[in-house]
Amino acid sequence: MAETIFSKIIRGEIPCHKVYEDAHVLSFLDVFPLSRGHTLVIPKQEVATVDQLSDEAAAAIGRALPRICRAVLMASGATAYNILQNNGAGAHQAVFHVHFHIIPKYDTGEGLGIVWKPGKLDGAAGAKLAGEIAKAI
Amino acid sequence: MAETIFSKIIRGEIPCHKVYEDAHVLSFLDVFPLSRGHTLVIPKQEVATVDQLSDEAAAAIGRALPRICRAVLMASGATAYNILQNNGAGAHQAVFHVHFHIIPKYDTGEGLGIVWKPGKLDGAAGAKLAGEIAKAI
Repeated sequence: MAETIFSKIIRGEIPCHKVYEDAHVLSFLDVFPLSRGHTLVIPKQEVATVDQLSDEAAAAIGRALPRICRAVLMASGATAYNILQNNGAGAHQAVFHVHFHIIPKYDTGEGLGIVWKPGKLDGAAGAKLAGEIAKAI
Repeated sequence: MAETIFSKIIRGEIPCHKVYEDAHVLSFLDVFPLSRGHTLVIPKQEVATVDQLSDEAAAAIGRALPRICRAVLMASGATAYNILQNNGAGAHQAVFHVHFHIIPKYDTGEGLGIVWKPGKLDGAAGAKLAGEIAKAI
């Protein structure tokens, strides 16, 4: 993986507004926030996408998320929020180092905008696909 | 918390297209998918939002996510995907039991639609807010 700006932030070569750090995880404010309190949570492991994360790094991020979310809610006063994590340029990823966005959503509409166009899962196709996914795990 | 349909799915009272299960986590296909391979990952802990999750449940979800994402990519053929997790009715949450969406994004545009209107973080305000969040963790 090519090094990104997040590697420099992890090493302290570029400053950030840090909110949390442990052996595997760093968390800091997004400098281009969608709303007040927009926070990033990243692994120190340098991989571009979640599917490449080690068990250890992924578990550490999972464990850190609720703690950081609680603190973001407390400090921002928000009560609703989205967690978004993008993988691949086609899926809106801009920095190719895994990052989870915690984005407070306010009554003003400030926050993440979501466009949701659901279909309906066909039973037989669903059973087949679920079997293929389960087999691949 | 009021019981949701996910409690019934966890207990096996309502069927699902299951792809993964361990002591803390259940994963199955979304029946109203945004794209082929749209998969939900939920904790067995019955809480509405991520900020209420136990360390143990949250770490288990974190650990399961990369494994399930790899399998979804393999089975669906997708290369890009979003992970989305909504907290609160104002943030597009519809079932009040924590769930992470894994949503493949295809070149056709099928998948999650994102509306992204970033601002710019003010340095002084950022330092103050980061300090407040850090203090609350």
